[in-house]
Amino acid sequence: MRRITESTPAADGFRMPGEFEPHRGCIMIFPERADSWQYGGYAARKAFVQVAEAIARSEKVTVCASDAQYDNARAMLPPWIRVVEMSSNDAWARDYAPTFVKNEEGEVRGVDWGFNAWGGLQDGLYFPWDKDNRMARKLCDLLDVDVYDKRDFILEGGSIHVDGEGTCMVTEACLLSEGRNPELTREQIEAVLCAYLNVSKILWLPCGIYQDETNEHVDNICAFVKPGEVVLAWTEDRDDVQYEMSKACLSYLEKAVDAKGRRIKVHKLPLPKPVTVTAEECAGLDACWDAPTRTPGERLAASYVNFYISNENIVMPGFGDPADEQAKEILQALFPEREVVQIYARDILIGGGNIHCITQQVI
Amino acid sequence: MRRITESTPAADGFRMPGEFEPHRGCIMIFPERADSWQYGGYAARKAFVQVAEAIARSEKVTVCASDAQYDNARAMLPPWIRVVEMSSNDAWARDYAPTFVKNEEGEVRGVDWGFNAWGGLQDGLYFPWDKDNRMARKLCDLLDVDVYDKRDFILEGGSIHVDGEGTCMVTEACLLSEGRNPELTREQIEAVLCAYLNVSKILWLPCGIYQDETNEHVDNICAFVKPGEVVLAWTEDRDDVQYEMSKACLSYLEKAVDAKGRRIKVHKLPLPKPVTVTAEECAGLDACWDAPTRTPGERLAASYVNFYISNENIVMPGFGDPADEQAKEILQALFPEREVVQIYARDILIGGGNIHCITQQVI
Repeated sequence: MRRITESTPAADGFRMPGEFEPHRGCIMIFPERADSWQYGGYAARKAFVQVAEAIARSEKVTVCASDAQYDNARAMLPPWIRVVEMSSNDAWARDYAPTFVKNEEGEVRGVDWGFNAWGGLQDGLYFPWDKDNRMARKLCDLLDVDVYDKRDFILEGGSIHVDGEGTCMVTEACLLSEGRNPELTREQIEAVLCAYLNVSKILWLPCGIYQDETNEHVDNICAFVKPGEVVLAWTEDRDDVQYEMSKACLSYLEKAVDAKGRRIKVHKLPLPKPVTVTAEECAGLDACWDAPTRTPGERLAASYVNFYISNENIVMPGFGDPADEQAKEILQALFPEREVVQIYARDILIGGGNIHCITQQVI
Repeated sequence: MRRITESTPAADGFRMPGEFEPHRGCIMIFPERADSWQYGGYAARKAFVQVAEAIARSEKVTVCASDAQYDNARAMLPPWIRVVEMSSNDAWARDYAPTFVKNEEGEVRGVDWGFNAWGGLQDGLYFPWDKDNRMARKLCDLLDVDVYDKRDFILEGGSIHVDGEGTCMVTEACLLSEGRNPELTREQIEAVLCAYLNVSKILWLPCGIYQDETNEHVDNICAFVKPGEVVLAWTEDRDDVQYEMSKACLSYLEKAVDAKGRRIKVHKLPLPKPVTVTAEECAGLDACWDAPTRTPGERLAASYVNFYISNENIVMPGFGDPADEQAKEILQALFPEREVVQIYARDILIGGGNIHCITQQVI
């Protein structure tokens, strides 16, 4: 693995493809952290395994597990899923696995962004985050691809979505947050994204999902289904604080054009009714930073937008909500060539994210 | 990775090739253990890196490093050598990486033998050995090959040599030791070797190198250079206790025939003068099991036979001994199509083995 510091993907002719473009595989991490995953993570493990199995229907899945969890992961996962030892602080492959880029000849490289647990000492979610921050280069080494070292720029994979044709979508709430790159202006942040993703247009949604503790990652509120078309998490309940947030995103998108000059077609994807954490769930979570991780009644950032696009499937969350079926039908109509697999994901959601957050495609 | 328990390599048509047959690559482990590698392993690391670089001239080298050592390993090794995180108790890839076998179609599988630190609670060299013992299946998982689970049989890779044509060579001192498989007869041990290496003839050298704390692994005293031909560690000094040991092996080999009915051609490879550990070296070694690891003046099991055959090189140890050059010339004559690379290996030897011990070929 060569570490590249003197050049950028754009300068070298590498771009990040859209998630709907073909994958070689997918990276996940086996959940273990007792202040993220209630009651020792036994329920979360099962959900992670279901997600891995669904993705493995059409692409090679590699699950990273700590040395302590390797045997458990190996025993729970089918033989066609690869388990490799790799240390991490938690299990959010989307946010600390590399962003993969490729050139016209099909050569693949990784981008190793800096990671500081979604806000570092400002408003990060745990400490330390050193093992997470070392995963991207370790994964590039494992996959034997060269890596662009951009650790001086804090970015999580879940805070960007690209269409593969020059457009990147982010939220202001996240990318302009105080805990990430406060020394950089919006224009400087745009320049980094353009250079490292090889895009020419940044769409800045104002915000994400209410109470999303990632500072409102884009991947929980809006996702490309193809170039020029997105799904947007939506509620018709005007009393819900999310209404104005989704509305603000819709207003932005209605006026936006992408890198190709196209207007963005927006498909509304309903949100489930607010999901709140129970006292019983909270009792199963270890403390973090001398404080409870969650408090009973706390609203979780549940959204159907947090799905993964595999080669032949859409792997999406369900919450036991009446909207589960409707959301599934909408995605099925938008991805007619892929079969939608819906996985009950409350046990992932309690950790603070969902299916897109725990996966990273390898191209 | 499928775990195979109901069949054997021989039954499935898989055999272990000779080390001189083509490799896909080589596995090594970054040294770290402070009771094996003097003064924190800094000198050993340099020697390991030289070995890795020499092997990487003609095959892909993967170095396993603990999470704690990953950055050090990555910084010391060139970019064309892959570093992967993998926990171990020490750095002897030969002894706990899988034995690879392949079939006529070229499919590769691994054999996962049991490992108990060269003798378990009887006369093992450290405790615990759990991480070492889990490496073989982890490496098969990493390489995405199925694995024969033979963990109920204790065997180290350094205790066997095969010619790839039906013959396996071992030492009685090691394979019949009390600390390995004392419940099995010699015939039962032969049966396991025949089934898992797909051989039909076991050559039982009586012993190995004096003071070899592996219970005298074959790979330190005798190695195939091609089917029907071996090099044997040799001394002309009749006052050296090693003389009778090497003589006993020679006498055995002179009467032996291999699986093909061939007599064995023996090339004597001189030993260096006895190498003893210094007080200064001992002072740099942490204690192990409440006792000093080595004592000043202790003789080490130095031998030129402990070389690695890569696709295009012979990577052999040197000890700063007058015999270094002679041994190199002998091996160069025996391997005319490979260039011999000699690496000063005292810092590996102090750990208790040599270049063959710290490498395992991937076929």
